[in-house]
Amino acid sequence: MDIKMGIARAGIKPSGDYDILVLKFPESVYSVYLTQNTLAAPPVIYDRLVSEMQETISAIVVNSGNANAATGIKGMENTEKMAEMVAEKFDLYKEEVMVFSTGVIGVQLPMEKVETGINQAVNNLQELDLELAAKAISTTDSFPKFYEIADEIDGKKYTIKGIAKGAGMIHPNMATMLAYIFTDVQIEKELLDKSSKIVLERSFNSIDVDGCESTNDSFLVVATGESDLKIDDSNKVQFTKQLLKVATELAKMIVKDGEGATKLIEINVHQAETKEEAKEIAEAIALSNLFKTAMFGNDPNWGRILAAVGQTHFNIDFSKVKLYLGDILLYSEEPVDFDRVEAENYLKNNKEITIDLYLGKGESSWRYYTCDLTYKYVEINAEYTT
Amino acid sequence: MDIKMGIARAGIKPSGDYDILVLKFPESVYSVYLTQNTLAAPPVIYDRLVSEMQETISAIVVNSGNANAATGIKGMENTEKMAEMVAEKFDLYKEEVMVFSTGVIGVQLPMEKVETGINQAVNNLQELDLELAAKAISTTDSFPKFYEIADEIDGKKYTIKGIAKGAGMIHPNMATMLAYIFTDVQIEKELLDKSSKIVLERSFNSIDVDGCESTNDSFLVVATGESDLKIDDSNKVQFTKQLLKVATELAKMIVKDGEGATKLIEINVHQAETKEEAKEIAEAIALSNLFKTAMFGNDPNWGRILAAVGQTHFNIDFSKVKLYLGDILLYSEEPVDFDRVEAENYLKNNKEITIDLYLGKGESSWRYYTCDLTYKYVEINAEYTT
Repeated sequence: MDIKMGIARAGIKPSGDYDILVLKFPESVYSVYLTQNTLAAPPVIYDRLVSEMQETISAIVVNSGNANAATGIKGMENTEKMAEMVAEKFDLYKEEVMVFSTGVIGVQLPMEKVETGINQAVNNLQELDLELAAKAISTTDSFPKFYEIADEIDGKKYTIKGIAKGAGMIHPNMATMLAYIFTDVQIEKELLDKSSKIVLERSFNSIDVDGCESTNDSFLVVATGESDLKIDDSNKVQFTKQLLKVATELAKMIVKDGEGATKLIEINVHQAETKEEAKEIAEAIALSNLFKTAMFGNDPNWGRILAAVGQTHFNIDFSKVKLYLGDILLYSEEPVDFDRVEAENYLKNNKEITIDLYLGKGESSWRYYTCDLTYKYVEINAEYTT
Repeated sequence: MDIKMGIARAGIKPSGDYDILVLKFPESVYSVYLTQNTLAAPPVIYDRLVSEMQETISAIVVNSGNANAATGIKGMENTEKMAEMVAEKFDLYKEEVMVFSTGVIGVQLPMEKVETGINQAVNNLQELDLELAAKAISTTDSFPKFYEIADEIDGKKYTIKGIAKGAGMIHPNMATMLAYIFTDVQIEKELLDKSSKIVLERSFNSIDVDGCESTNDSFLVVATGESDLKIDDSNKVQFTKQLLKVATELAKMIVKDGEGATKLIEINVHQAETKEEAKEIAEAIALSNLFKTAMFGNDPNWGRILAAVGQTHFNIDFSKVKLYLGDILLYSEEPVDFDRVEAENYLKNNKEITIDLYLGKGESSWRYYTCDLTYKYVEINAEYTT
């Protein structure tokens, strides 16, 4: 794919790491999903306007270290300035450039630094390097998050490449999470929207770190159309599966990197009446602080899992419920005698934990990822400075 | 009030502390509110049946140290056995005795110990001692919770006495929380129900420790009718205010004793369009792990407060919002320059913190109590054994 990248160390991040990313690509169809938090940041409001006006975009600009959120009219002017600078350089309309910001809330962007950084980035374009690009959008992330796959359909090759950032404030309807996925397939906007929405629900909207939704969450899928492969009804399923694969891998990296997390926990809810029920129950478990602390403490505390299920107030007959931790049956229509030491060792010895809950009601299921709640989470978030 | 108390150390709690409480009182009208968690414990299911059949009750029996939850048919048999033992001793019908349990989930009650304890309690009745009664129903509580007031209306005296327990799994729709309030007024059941429901919503259903609703929550108000004072439309407001006072003091004690908490935080939402909106917004702030860790870290992080407000998805115009921490204005229609050191010192030097949020929309308000999220919370809940 012909994606050019510019990065810079503008000094927005106190650490001095890369904090400006510009990506320039051919005029492309795209799908974008933005936070539903009503304290949406100016870049989110700006991108929402773009998405209502523009069928295609050609560039994005991202700054990390400052979310440009709760910054009012001045914040909106700064967002537009960022778009203008990139548009001018590449001879585009401002509305062909999307803008994203992530970092602390409520502080105006240091525009002198931002402008110097953007200038430097747009004047030093290079081939897209996923790892470097991921680093440039990171904040409290402890590792860069990127993933790519190459696939073919009917002998026609295509690729999907993604980067993401996020470690805290991670919760459905998205969070301080940015994710950008690029593919070279040819696809109508309508079909891309449909496919992206399914992928979003099953990936970034099915992860949780701390239940907090942010002001800046954004998920963007761009299709440049450079491949010979045209996506239509005959092959949309395979394409969507691959798109989901990339999104899921990125989403899992975010949870693994959850602030202070020591375990990635996959929660599978089976035999629900509807997908919505399955998702809501999985989410209730994922969000329970009591469950998350038990996982940190290597405690196979099935009572807290079932109590979280009960808190959803769905009509569940617990005399039909089965619950597994890994392969270990913890509850089977009633409390069962399980090997406690084996269960504790499973928790102690694995960084990736699986919970399988069978409701005995229907045929719908959902998968959700979360992490444990640790001393480190408290430390990071008690000592983070506004 | 003629309330007799029996307590025992039955050995259900490993600590050897009091774990059985029996209270015997004159045949009384009552109002009871039980957990909505669908994993309701057998005692909750039993009490629900009682409340559908009985206009009056004459005794309660409580065990602490074991919640008798997720224990199936055997658990229900044990609950009924507890009621039967107390009923037999006092020559009552089983259905005149309510049963409550609190403690670990999923373990059958050690009935031999429970029976010995109940026998000991019912055969050694004494005058009600609120502190001892509160101790007998405690689990992870670090101090006993009780409160009483004496008041008079038109020269007629009456009293209200309450005990409560709870420290974790505290969240609206109640939690691992038991609260019993006794009053000697004469009152019709219908009016008592109405009054108690208002009180419940404004007290125990407006507190949070960790967002987790338990399997055993119960709130019981008993009116023995021994006072000359009859509550009717002319004096119900004063009575309800006093009932709310007792319930609120007990509820605040629960939050103060929130597992690992170092601060009691009062969140007042003002100028909402409806009470429901005010309550939901207050609750969203109270539940935010990011807000709760910031409070622990003495960080006046108003961005996290407003982000939690935005997460409710109510239509809020943040250019009309004002936010105070104590007397310090943190946000006034836009970010303001406040004295950061003063704000940090306010957080450092006070055990009771006040947040006032003005939405600039309407005239409804709500008060909510929560606590901070600390290392100690993680420690307690990671190391608690099933």
